[in-house]
Amino acid sequence: MNLPTTRLDSAADVPVLDAASSALDVRLAARHGGFSGHTSGLASEHVQANLAILPADLAEDFRRYCALNPQACPLLGVSEPGDPTLTALGADLDLRTDLPRYRVWRDGELVDEPVDIARWWRDDLVAFVIGCSFSFEHALLAEGIPLRHVEQGRNVAMYRTSIETAPAGVFRGPTVVSMRPLTAADAIRAVQITSRLPQVHGAPLHLGDPSRIGIRDLATPDYGDAVDVRDGELPVFWACGVTPQSAIATARPPFCITHAPGHMLVTDLLNRALLAA
Amino acid sequence: MNLPTTRLDSAADVPVLDAASSALDVRLAARHGGFSGHTSGLASEHVQANLAILPADLAEDFRRYCALNPQACPLLGVSEPGDPTLTALGADLDLRTDLPRYRVWRDGELVDEPVDIARWWRDDLVAFVIGCSFSFEHALLAEGIPLRHVEQGRNVAMYRTSIETAPAGVFRGPTVVSMRPLTAADAIRAVQITSRLPQVHGAPLHLGDPSRIGIRDLATPDYGDAVDVRDGELPVFWACGVTPQSAIATARPPFCITHAPGHMLVTDLLNRALLAA
Repeated sequence: MNLPTTRLDSAADVPVLDAASSALDVRLAARHGGFSGHTSGLASEHVQANLAILPADLAEDFRRYCALNPQACPLLGVSEPGDPTLTALGADLDLRTDLPRYRVWRDGELVDEPVDIARWWRDDLVAFVIGCSFSFEHALLAEGIPLRHVEQGRNVAMYRTSIETAPAGVFRGPTVVSMRPLTAADAIRAVQITSRLPQVHGAPLHLGDPSRIGIRDLATPDYGDAVDVRDGELPVFWACGVTPQSAIATARPPFCITHAPGHMLVTDLLNRALLAA
Repeated sequence: MNLPTTRLDSAADVPVLDAASSALDVRLAARHGGFSGHTSGLASEHVQANLAILPADLAEDFRRYCALNPQACPLLGVSEPGDPTLTALGADLDLRTDLPRYRVWRDGELVDEPVDIARWWRDDLVAFVIGCSFSFEHALLAEGIPLRHVEQGRNVAMYRTSIETAPAGVFRGPTVVSMRPLTAADAIRAVQITSRLPQVHGAPLHLGDPSRIGIRDLATPDYGDAVDVRDGELPVFWACGVTPQSAIATARPPFCITHAPGHMLVTDLLNRALLAA
């Protein structure tokens, strides 16, 4: 196992982070402990991802769960047991240190929210890196499609739906969706754009009447913040990376680590490289 | 000018036409006079098209009108003045005889509805061949998306909208759309499928609330037959080849020939060859 070198520069050396930062800049800033904030908007050309780390005896079921539900759980990478590197997603990448903040769970209960997981790491852990909507939002914004929650500085609104995921082992539960209000013309363009991005949730699952997918009230999301759907707009719903987190929470595995919400893994992958041929 | 040979076989030789017929079978059946019916469902792998024939002095404006409004007027081919062939669309193709029925217009008034236009042909006429929705409907049906008007044996419902086309010379007017009711999931797939078919109207222009594009009542289409939009369905609207016909009707050119509704030009192009790379 070839672990990356953890540089021990002082926090004073941590670079200022912004949209133009490299992915490695962000990871090193997190690794040094000088950066423990949200990654939204940082290294904006790069793919950010959800992280779920499970013991090896649950990993095969979870891998199958992701494969069965690719829109909600698009796998960008899976580590070897005990190996905290994932060179396909970053040459100098250490999953134990490179996210700004983590959540550690025992039997479904949150037990720690550390800035690194060195002391929690075990030789049987398998890390799953799952695409997130930041990449397709970047593509939508680049095409001039306005996103209300971004304009308003809120988290995207997310809802549990009546669309059940395909179960695998202990992993099961509802598909969670994120919602963005769009005009019909922008909704059509958003379908076109996100269809080309299957590794970060792909096309919407639904648009229009929320009750069709079991959502009673758009004003009360299950996660994130509500935003208004204005006259002439349709709510457009994409499968969301909270789906696998919700499945893990329901399964209550003896041990598990995830990223803290909004504190994503910033990979070396370029958003534009995700475009399907 | 290299005109195709018009075969003078007797009507008794006209082959039985069906979905498996070749495009040439259909054209020869029309050319011989034995076939003057609708082309819907015939030679189903092949691209069918709208025809508009104008005098050369209006042709440049009409060509520009089509270029400015490519979703409504996707040009598949334009003939040389006076030349009734279009070898790119069919090796043995005579635009004067190969459609089952035509309409001849003088100053915007219908003056003839012949089965060939040999006696109306002039050396200054330019033929425009414009993609039609039959091709994308074929693609939607092939992907398992049900189309209500097909199930019910009706014409598709068409509506004038408040979306003005970009004018060119005397050609102007509203975009005409065709409407198909679909579930949200099928509407999303239909956007994906038809986005790949820009030569036959491409992606929908609109979906959802009809009043947003100036349609007051779905139950009273301006052309074609009404179909129900059922609970849980959205009306999905595509730009329609009636748009250029409507622009020509408004322009009232001194002379003009079109196909009779439903009596299309069947080309040698394969529907599957239209898929955008």
